[in-house]
Amino acid sequence: MAEKSIRFGVLGCAEIARKVSRAIILSPNSTLYAVGSRSIDKASRFASANGFPPSVKIYGSYEAVLDDPDVDAVYVPLPTSLHVRWAILAAEKKKHVLLEKPVALNVAQFDLIVEACESNGVQFMDGTMWMHHPRTAKMREFLSDKQRFGQLKSMHTCFTFGADPDFLKNDIRVKPDLDALGALGDAGWYCIRSILWAADYELPKTVTALREPVLNEVGVILSCGSSLHWEDGKVATFQCSFLSNLTMDITAIGTKGALHLHDFVIPFQEKEASFSAASESGFTELVTGWVPIPSEHTVMTDLPQEVLMVREFASLVRSIKENGSKPEQKWPILSRKTQLVLDAVKASIDRGFEAVEVQY
Amino acid sequence: MAEKSIRFGVLGCAEIARKVSRAIILSPNSTLYAVGSRSIDKASRFASANGFPPSVKIYGSYEAVLDDPDVDAVYVPLPTSLHVRWAILAAEKKKHVLLEKPVALNVAQFDLIVEACESNGVQFMDGTMWMHHPRTAKMREFLSDKQRFGQLKSMHTCFTFGADPDFLKNDIRVKPDLDALGALGDAGWYCIRSILWAADYELPKTVTALREPVLNEVGVILSCGSSLHWEDGKVATFQCSFLSNLTMDITAIGTKGALHLHDFVIPFQEKEASFSAASESGFTELVTGWVPIPSEHTVMTDLPQEVLMVREFASLVRSIKENGSKPEQKWPILSRKTQLVLDAVKASIDRGFEAVEVQY
Repeated sequence: MAEKSIRFGVLGCAEIARKVSRAIILSPNSTLYAVGSRSIDKASRFASANGFPPSVKIYGSYEAVLDDPDVDAVYVPLPTSLHVRWAILAAEKKKHVLLEKPVALNVAQFDLIVEACESNGVQFMDGTMWMHHPRTAKMREFLSDKQRFGQLKSMHTCFTFGADPDFLKNDIRVKPDLDALGALGDAGWYCIRSILWAADYELPKTVTALREPVLNEVGVILSCGSSLHWEDGKVATFQCSFLSNLTMDITAIGTKGALHLHDFVIPFQEKEASFSAASESGFTELVTGWVPIPSEHTVMTDLPQEVLMVREFASLVRSIKENGSKPEQKWPILSRKTQLVLDAVKASIDRGFEAVEVQY
Repeated sequence: MAEKSIRFGVLGCAEIARKVSRAIILSPNSTLYAVGSRSIDKASRFASANGFPPSVKIYGSYEAVLDDPDVDAVYVPLPTSLHVRWAILAAEKKKHVLLEKPVALNVAQFDLIVEACESNGVQFMDGTMWMHHPRTAKMREFLSDKQRFGQLKSMHTCFTFGADPDFLKNDIRVKPDLDALGALGDAGWYCIRSILWAADYELPKTVTALREPVLNEVGVILSCGSSLHWEDGKVATFQCSFLSNLTMDITAIGTKGALHLHDFVIPFQEKEASFSAASESGFTELVTGWVPIPSEHTVMTDLPQEVLMVREFASLVRSIKENGSKPEQKWPILSRKTQLVLDAVKASIDRGFEAVEVQY
């Protein structure tokens, strides 16, 4: 199978690149082929610190990775402000693009990336790993079951974590020139994606940010939230933050059922993950208990979710390379919808918490 | 002990009165002494259908219960619009008042009730049962622990249930002349109380209702939500509804920990109840799992929470009767704060989702 492997180049030595490089190594249809940093020393140190095979090529620039004709695809974990430049350049060099989230600083930038990918016939996918966990597919089955879940009525999600003082001072995610969207772009991205996922990717009609987001002294969001409203009356709220203990909740409530989980972005454990499903919940005769009690469902996975993400991406790339298939449109569409809602939350904050319309 | 028992009269035959009558029977310091309805037949049928002891006096009016000199206290589960009349009359007849929630249609009405209770030296308590479950005290310990939980930063609660077509047409909670606050007064009461409880009863500075609440054709709220904002940046959201599957969630997130439970109003089971507590949650080295994983805590209770509520109330009444103690101020203060926030949510809805200030 080795010769059919998709060869990945990694642009930069971000912390998250350690995990995704391991995923590329573990995925049965991909090979970690090259890593590039702004200095060859940094790239070398990164490769040896993470135990990369000696076959991995080490480059002293991102361009060098893109110029290597044997690189099929790139994983781009650079700061968000650099996405538009490097993702477009990668596409122009006919490299398929696996791009970290948030995909761009705004949807106009993202559309340039999608345009470049489309016109060069390369696959685009963002790095939202939990989408690829088999638990997600099981939960989707539950949400789509009109008998067990009914129609989605309301949702709440949160993704918060307690950043340490060094992060709050130095991380790229608190720098206006690197990741200007801060906690909204980082943690909020997942909240918004999970809401869209539960709503079967139907966009909300309006988005209204919660008042009093917390910003740092240079205006980057450290904590915020929003409500989302659909034409049919569905409502969702989310809260994202760098200033609280780690939480990753989805609560999705339908007419006939409810879904709960507390580790949607990173499952508590690598090999198994659970969710709680309630259906037609009611009470005992004197309302002193529930009948039935919600049930816990555990889903095993041989491969971690980030490996499943790489495998899915590499499989799409292989179809394009070997069969001349067209790139799968689903992934850039999901990224774009997520970014659209993210932009609307930001606009609502900027406009004093007005309701902002969302249009595809 | 029998002669030291507090003798309760029950006003009306509401569904919830079945559960609280049983609680009065089960509580070691109280006696179910009388039940009154607008017709003596209805009261009789209610008593026999629920297996009340033959000693329970049956009255054909609420006044008759209040006029019985042997009744120490009344439980009032009447429609909210009748609270001000019957709670005040009860206080004037020197009966201690256990009143169902919402305590009033607005805080001005509630203040009349409190004034009547104060000037007649009778105890007031509302019927928020979960406050009395030993789990609630255990969770309070966790939230107050600066090491394990830190400072409260954000919260979300929901209480939703799927009302059947008969409820949505005929229940007092959808009638503008009986329970004009609808789902906000019924389910929302619990959400607001739980938020205040987690915030150690510090009132929010402002309340902003979520857009697009669902109303029935006569303007009663069937589903709504709100965000609450504190001076120090704390934020909470809640959603309450008659139109979704049963959920009862509390998520409270602090700087160092997080609390989760999904059955805060009515525990899944009568004799034991659980919550999840997370402290200083972090990730494995490559961010492929959590360390530590949140822990589950189970709290047993010999007596159901509604019995513990009656026992606490009866114990306060006994102190007043036997020792000349003053009524415990904590309970009417908590009721008033809850009603204040409830009023602010209603005002925000009425004023087009403006931020409404809350002042005690």
